[in-house]
Amino acid sequence: MGTYVLVHGAWHTGKELEPVANFINAAGHNAYTPTIKGNRPGDPKTVGLDEAIRSVVDYLEENNLKDVVLVGHSYGGMVITGVADRVPARIRRLVYWNAFVPNNGECLNDMVPPHYVSLFDSIAAERGDGSVVLPFPIWREAFINDVDLGTAQRAYDVLNPHPLKTLKDKISLKTNPADMTVAKSYINCTEDISLPHHYPWHPRLSQKLGLFRLVQVPGSHELCFSNPGRLAQAVMDAGRD
Amino acid sequence: MGTYVLVHGAWHTGKELEPVANFINAAGHNAYTPTIKGNRPGDPKTVGLDEAIRSVVDYLEENNLKDVVLVGHSYGGMVITGVADRVPARIRRLVYWNAFVPNNGECLNDMVPPHYVSLFDSIAAERGDGSVVLPFPIWREAFINDVDLGTAQRAYDVLNPHPLKTLKDKISLKTNPADMTVAKSYINCTEDISLPHHYPWHPRLSQKLGLFRLVQVPGSHELCFSNPGRLAQAVMDAGRD
Amino acid sequence: MGTYVLVHGAWHTGKELEPVANFINAAGHNAYTPTIKGNRPGDPKTVGLDEAIRSVVDYLEENNLKDVVLVGHSYGGMVITGVADRVPARIRRLVYWNAFVPNNGECLNDMVPPHYVSLFDSIAAERGDGSVVLPFPIWREAFINDVDLGTAQRAYDVLNPHPLKTLKDKISLKTNPADMTVAKSYINCTEDISLPHHYPWHPRLSQKLGLFRLVQVPGSHELCFSNPGRLAQAVMDAGRD
Repeated sequence: MGTYVLVHGAWHTGKELEPVANFINAAGHNAYTPTIKGNRPGDPKTVGLDEAIRSVVDYLEENNLKDVVLVGHSYGGMVITGVADRVPARIRRLVYWNAFVPNNGECLNDMVPPHYVSLFDSIAAERGDGSVVLPFPIWREAFINDVDLGTAQRAYDVLNPHPLKTLKDKISLKTNPADMTVAKSYINCTEDISLPHHYPWHPRLSQKLGLFRLVQVPGSHELCFSNPGRLAQAVMDAGRD
Repeated sequence: MGTYVLVHGAWHTGKELEPVANFINAAGHNAYTPTIKGNRPGDPKTVGLDEAIRSVVDYLEENNLKDVVLVGHSYGGMVITGVADRVPARIRRLVYWNAFVPNNGECLNDMVPPHYVSLFDSIAAERGDGSVVLPFPIWREAFINDVDLGTAQRAYDVLNPHPLKTLKDKISLKTNPADMTVAKSYINCTEDISLPHHYPWHPRLSQKLGLFRLVQVPGSHELCFSNPGRLAQAVMDAGRD
Repeated sequence: MGTYVLVHGAWHTGKELEPVANFINAAGHNAYTPTIKGNRPGDPKTVGLDEAIRSVVDYLEENNLKDVVLVGHSYGGMVITGVADRVPARIRRLVYWNAFVPNNGECLNDMVPPHYVSLFDSIAAERGDGSVVLPFPIWREAFINDVDLGTAQRAYDVLNPHPLKTLKDKISLKTNPADMTVAKSYINCTEDISLPHHYPWHPRLSQKLGLFRLVQVPGSHELCFSNPGRLAQAVMDAGRD
């Protein structure tokens, strides 16, 4: 069966994807949930994008993972794109789940509305350690709009401050995603308004993949909390050959 | 539990929302279904937007309703925006259900395709009492496309002529919706083509709310007839904190 | 009950729609699945659009079918538009299922992204008999993204080479679809990326119908293979009065 590596988004760790991995494992696959450098307990918040990408490359190499279905959520799309560019021979398919799709020279902030960029900057300036956090009202209304308030609050409580530099660093790629020969899929949660629907994930960012498989599923940006079993099914539908 | 006030759209009365209210009440809330001035039996059809808004403000005050989740459908979006502007202290959250979102100085007709404006004008000119009706073919194909013909016909038979002036009057607001501090949600029925999908409800109008929670549900503009229980669930998902 | 005539898309024959027809028949209707000239076993691959349209007109006349709900899939939208223009008295309603909607003087190739046009030309040039085939990777990822690999392969194996001339011939219509008085519906499969979602079936092409009924259903362009029962229900919801 398949090897799935699930790469989390900003403010998350691999731990939040374990319920998803459990469903994938129960279907007979092997699912891994590394935490990107910069989001591990104790990591300095000055980590940049290249270090973040390198940490997942290292994870694949240390565990000698091959034929990997590499899944990236949100900011994780930056990371899996970089990983596929650096170690293409280990990757069977890239799966973007409401994830950023960068071309060479782009940073995450290039793909979000300007009001997010200035919000992140002002929050980071206030914190002073290089990290940014998400204000709760934005989290509750735009990121996890499909659960009750208690679930939204408990999920918020496990988030960790995210290194701002990873959102500002421009990615360095030998090959843009549309030109990568690896197979590609995009999972779009149809109620995800973490990016507004007039400036959406899909098809605005997904089309940068060239030929790709689309899987859509109802839910918010944080389907890992609201319905991990449904997300796991979408990941497997996106990840199969 | 919560206090829900459901404000109907053009051509409707509160009575058509009672099946929805019944589901909400059964979940332990208190749901109210006022009829806007201009749509009550015997109302003159010369009523304007300000009178319409005032009639719902009066309803809230007469019943001394507080902490209200104020839900507006279609034209009802004009009304709840005006109500929130006039008595903000009574409102806990605004919920727009495929509803118009006006800024100060806009009228409903500013937000519909030009062919609707001219159609409404010519029908009202023919009727001569200030009211407009919806031709049955448009109702059946574009408003209630998710039921059989008999249901479409029975629903059409309970509609009442709507005062055209409420569609032409420009709203007067102290605060535009995006700047209101009250919480806001938008319910989008995904098969609602009463506004065409190349000129849609969401995200074209919803984005005028600034930060808002999105809830989507399958169905036409008239989900109150086609699936009131599903609509009630969407209203409660949109209306909770 | 109703008379349904299901007109297949490019590379298909009527046989692939028989499972759909069986569900419609089981609901008490009469469903027919003709094969368009150019896609029948042994047909020359030099057939043009006019001959293709004529073959379905002939089918209706030979079987003396009246009050027909005429359903067209993809390329079949070109054909049913031409049929409705030539024999309007036989048609009760047109149903476009992720189908092309041409105005007078347009060809199918006018409505697809340029990279498809050049791909079709180069494949046809290589084949040399006037026909074009679809490369398997495009079929698997963009046409039938909602099934497993084995199903995708088996479905691919029943396709037949399609006459390129039918994609290049400009249609000749007395009346454009928006001006036809016949009732019209559009079925949109929400995960259909055979046309990319930044250049989509709906509403880009559906809006050319003028007033129409929208039915949406989850699934890929090839819902006839992935879920014929669900497709049959959508066809009946779209086809009823």
